[in-house]
Amino acid sequence: MYNLVMQMGMIYLFTGNGKGKTTSALGTAIRAIGYGKKVVVIQFMKKRETGEKKFFQKHGYEFYQFGTEKFVDFKNPTEKDKQLAKEGLNFAKEKLKEKPFLLVLDELNVAIAANLLSVEEVLEMLSNIPEETHIIITGRYAKQELIDKADLVTEMKEIKHPFQKGKPAIEGLDF
Amino acid sequence: MYNLVMQMGMIYLFTGNGKGKTTSALGTAIRAIGYGKKVVVIQFMKKRETGEKKFFQKHGYEFYQFGTEKFVDFKNPTEKDKQLAKEGLNFAKEKLKEKPFLLVLDELNVAIAANLLSVEEVLEMLSNIPEETHIIITGRYAKQELIDKADLVTEMKEIKHPFQKGKPAIEGLDF
Repeated sequence: MYNLVMQMGMIYLFTGNGKGKTTSALGTAIRAIGYGKKVVVIQFMKKRETGEKKFFQKHGYEFYQFGTEKFVDFKNPTEKDKQLAKEGLNFAKEKLKEKPFLLVLDELNVAIAANLLSVEEVLEMLSNIPEETHIIITGRYAKQELIDKADLVTEMKEIKHPFQKGKPAIEGLDF
Repeated sequence: MYNLVMQMGMIYLFTGNGKGKTTSALGTAIRAIGYGKKVVVIQFMKKRETGEKKFFQKHGYEFYQFGTEKFVDFKNPTEKDKQLAKEGLNFAKEKLKEKPFLLVLDELNVAIAANLLSVEEVLEMLSNIPEETHIIITGRYAKQELIDKADLVTEMKEIKHPFQKGKPAIEGLDF
């Protein structure tokens, strides 16, 4: 009977090449915080001042980044890139012990796709989630194993994008 | 030359049958607020206590709902449904005069699809946007005219959803 109770939490996965993956995770975080729930946001492969970082830190909500300021070279990631991703994953495991209502693992799919983390070690983490904790994983290039593991999967599909026309990203809207 | 300066703001459209449209708009709102920008969220066809409503109102951010507590019958919307949608659209026009950085029009696509508003009156509003204002429109069933008008369009495509398995919506995660 115990197994029926385990893993009550949902795993939501947002992938695809379109805009809206990270922001959807952040919007869900706001929704949970609105109900007074404990939320932890962990961003992989990012180290940047963004609107969301400013917002979360200003209000004292938990928000952490594990990455460098440079883009990761997928074909040739550095040891530093790998080390930071491992630190992020280990930090996520530690945070799970605090049994948050929601743990956001932003860009985790990309960290796997860039070979900073193996899908096996991520699946291992996902098989040890407190029953009260929901997980949101974002990022392009989601592995089939994670799609299979998730309860909900949305593909954010790009239909039209202004960057296609060479327009720059806008502060407060795109980051 | 003046026309080149007009309509600098972006119109982002989130549509499709998958989860993540409203939350992506809310996450973008947080991003903008993080930079100290003025944001206005208007929800059509909704009147409900949700995590996002609690959150925005607690922090004093602008958040408005124009709808009833009942679901709208698409085949037979009531006069009240139509009246509230019109009020929402008029309210949006008034708010545009305050030149917010971001105006979210949540579920506006659905209000058009349910014949509460015409696509023409929405396009008319969108042709009178202050140049400093960005717009996010969400909801399934986006009309082609709005897709054509938008600068960015993401289709949130449902790959897998727990409601398919009869699982209920979760407070703080799904509303």
